Amino acid sequence: MSDNLLKEKVEQAVNILQEKGIDLWLTFVRETELTVDPVLSYILGAGCTWQSAFIITSKGRRVAIVGSLDREKISRTSIYQEIIPYVGSIKESLLKVLEEEKPKKIALNFSKDSPASDGLTYGMFLKLMEYLEGTEWRERIVSSEDIISALRGRKTPEEIKRIEEAIKITEKIFKRVTEFIKPGLKEKDIAEFMKEEVRREGAELAWEEETDPAVFSGPQEVGAHSGPTEKRVEREHVINIDFGVKWKDYVSDLQRVWYVPKEGIDIPEKVRDAFEIVKEAIRLAKKFLRPGVKGWEVDNVAREFIKSKGYEEYPHALGHPVGRSVHDGGTLLAPKWERYGELPFKEVEEGNVFTLEPRINLPEFGVVSIEEIVVVEKDGSRFLSTPQEEIFLVK
Amino acid sequence: MSDNLLKEKVEQAVNILQEKGIDLWLTFVRETELTVDPVLSYILGAGCTWQSAFIITSKGRRVAIVGSLDREKISRTSIYQEIIPYVGSIKESLLKVLEEEKPKKIALNFSKDSPASDGLTYGMFLKLMEYLEGTEWRERIVSSEDIISALRGRKTPEEIKRIEEAIKITEKIFKRVTEFIKPGLKEKDIAEFMKEEVRREGAELAWEEETDPAVFSGPQEVGAHSGPTEKRVEREHVINIDFGVKWKDYVSDLQRVWYVPKEGIDIPEKVRDAFEIVKEAIRLAKKFLRPGVKGWEVDNVAREFIKSKGYEEYPHALGHPVGRSVHDGGTLLAPKWERYGELPFKEVEEGNVFTLEPRINLPEFGVVSIEEIVVVEKDGSRFLSTPQEEIFLVK
Repeated sequence: MSDNLLKEKVEQAVNILQEKGIDLWLTFVRETELTVDPVLSYILGAGCTWQSAFIITSKGRRVAIVGSLDREKISRTSIYQEIIPYVGSIKESLLKVLEEEKPKKIALNFSKDSPASDGLTYGMFLKLMEYLEGTEWRERIVSSEDIISALRGRKTPEEIKRIEEAIKITEKIFKRVTEFIKPGLKEKDIAEFMKEEVRREGAELAWEEETDPAVFSGPQEVGAHSGPTEKRVEREHVINIDFGVKWKDYVSDLQRVWYVPKEGIDIPEKVRDAFEIVKEAIRLAKKFLRPGVKGWEVDNVAREFIKSKGYEEYPHALGHPVGRSVHDGGTLLAPKWERYGELPFKEVEEGNVFTLEPRINLPEFGVVSIEEIVVVEKDGSRFLSTPQEEIFLVK
Repeated sequence: MSDNLLKEKVEQAVNILQEKGIDLWLTFVRETELTVDPVLSYILGAGCTWQSAFIITSKGRRVAIVGSLDREKISRTSIYQEIIPYVGSIKESLLKVLEEEKPKKIALNFSKDSPASDGLTYGMFLKLMEYLEGTEWRERIVSSEDIISALRGRKTPEEIKRIEEAIKITEKIFKRVTEFIKPGLKEKDIAEFMKEEVRREGAELAWEEETDPAVFSGPQEVGAHSGPTEKRVEREHVINIDFGVKWKDYVSDLQRVWYVPKEGIDIPEKVRDAFEIVKEAIRLAKKFLRPGVKGWEVDNVAREFIKSKGYEEYPHALGHPVGRSVHDGGTLLAPKWERYGELPFKEVEEGNVFTLEPRINLPEFGVVSIEEIVVVEKDGSRFLSTPQEEIFLVK
């Protein structure tokens, strides 16, 4: 993250602390090469080796307590006004800062439901409890989930710009792959072509290379998180590609649908019908999406519409936040299933960026799933992607 | 990690479970793009999206319980004989497997001291406790630190081979940079040259690019974890470079020392003296290093030797394990300082690979620090790196 954006986000964090009534937020980490708290890239933009405490208060104080050998590097990030180096143990300095601040609440990065807010490891939690033993601070611990969800979720104009740039690159590559796909090619060939295009654009993949892009040609049982196989494109296949790129630390995540017609024969009614229903489900969900609605309510609009048309409901969420990460944490546009925990019950906020990705599986043809990206604005929502209006045809 | 090495490590894990008397090891993760348990690359070699449980038992049973959309991808890793997909919640399948196994101990990935064994987040721990509520399994939880430390620490011949290959590349680049360094160059120029060489070799950096390589020219206060600066090489500087590469998933981590002489004037006695003492400290520690000794005892040999020569003790550990990660977890060759927790008290084992990196800081000249890599064998230890015998001279 650039220094300016980093500063912007840390200032935003101070405002969020005030709004949420939390006076002190403590990010407690170590050996960030091995386990990295995903919030660190928002509030530090560097790694550290020894146990380190990054403290932001609602009054705007920013303190970093770090191993002496990390001091110089952390000070270069110019985010923390005070840097307290230690050699033997972090405990004393940490207790001293807490004593100075006398926080009523200490927010730590743990969450049962939101992985983006769950960067504190259990061992580090135990270590911290050991340090705080016999103090009043132990009783004041709360989860920072609300802080982090707001911080990641409320995109600044610069963040939205970067996501749009990532989307533009993705759409450019979708266009090129439409020319490239031919009957006889393997799913893997198509994925390779796209990866090469990503490199040519100087971008990175948005998620792990095994499944970015995910390419599904023709009928199948496997789901959206699987990688491309040796399977070959045939006529009468529906092709679905799930693909995203990372650009200046921000990602896209889109799906498009192709059809490979038999010569002289049009797209089958069934495929056309499923495509229109998926498109309409996205349009309806987008229309409903605005600040204040709950995640599950948005999912429900699309899910019920698809069910009302006689199709099976999709076995996943309608959409998820996108940002620095492809599953960016915070409110999920998901049904109230146990595996989604509390996330579908949270409210949509202005500045949130979501995917919308309902799906219909046609056992005879393939997966009909479109994925768009929208940003939530004051009174509604706006497409950041250029919505797919027609099925792309493979020649 | 290649499939073969992955299989080798999982088989090793089963043996370690038997040896440690732990009947069931549970790795509980989700959204591995955001927070990744560092042990996952040893027992899975893929990522997952929803809450997932990877279970290995001392009887050799291997079960993966994963979200239905991750099933196909996980099955491709061919590590888990049983893959149980779920849609709604992982709870039922997880309890079923525990009920079948009736483990006396359930090892989870948390550790107060070892980051490599601390991949379970606090939120995921709470979630798991929720699932296990009202069962006897909650009382049977232990830390998997001993399992993971042994698994990472006991390198197989293939792992040692890869580390040696990484070392070879590092030494090749050290040779080239010796020709490149000239008075007037900035620390940053030297780092850039080396990074370019890493790319040319088709390798990656071993740790974050801000500090790999770390280049220190002349007198300084900053420590080994800082990156190169705008400072220029001058005559009478001691130059220290800390540098490592990643090759086939395994890393090197070495330091070398250069001197930039004034024309016609030899290396000062003081610099030569410090270099010989650091070299001798490494030699003594290596001689002492063998299976069964404690980490702090090894550190102590080098530390006391340097102090006995009238120099200040180095403000860090003598050495750390190296493997897939530059700080690979397990026994540390470190003093009994609070920040190292229990790690200096652990025993050295056969197959362990350590750095040895004592340091003398010469305020007038710069940092004299050599870092070598050794592997522990049945009756002693062996250099994997080619030890630096003489100070490298800059022309």
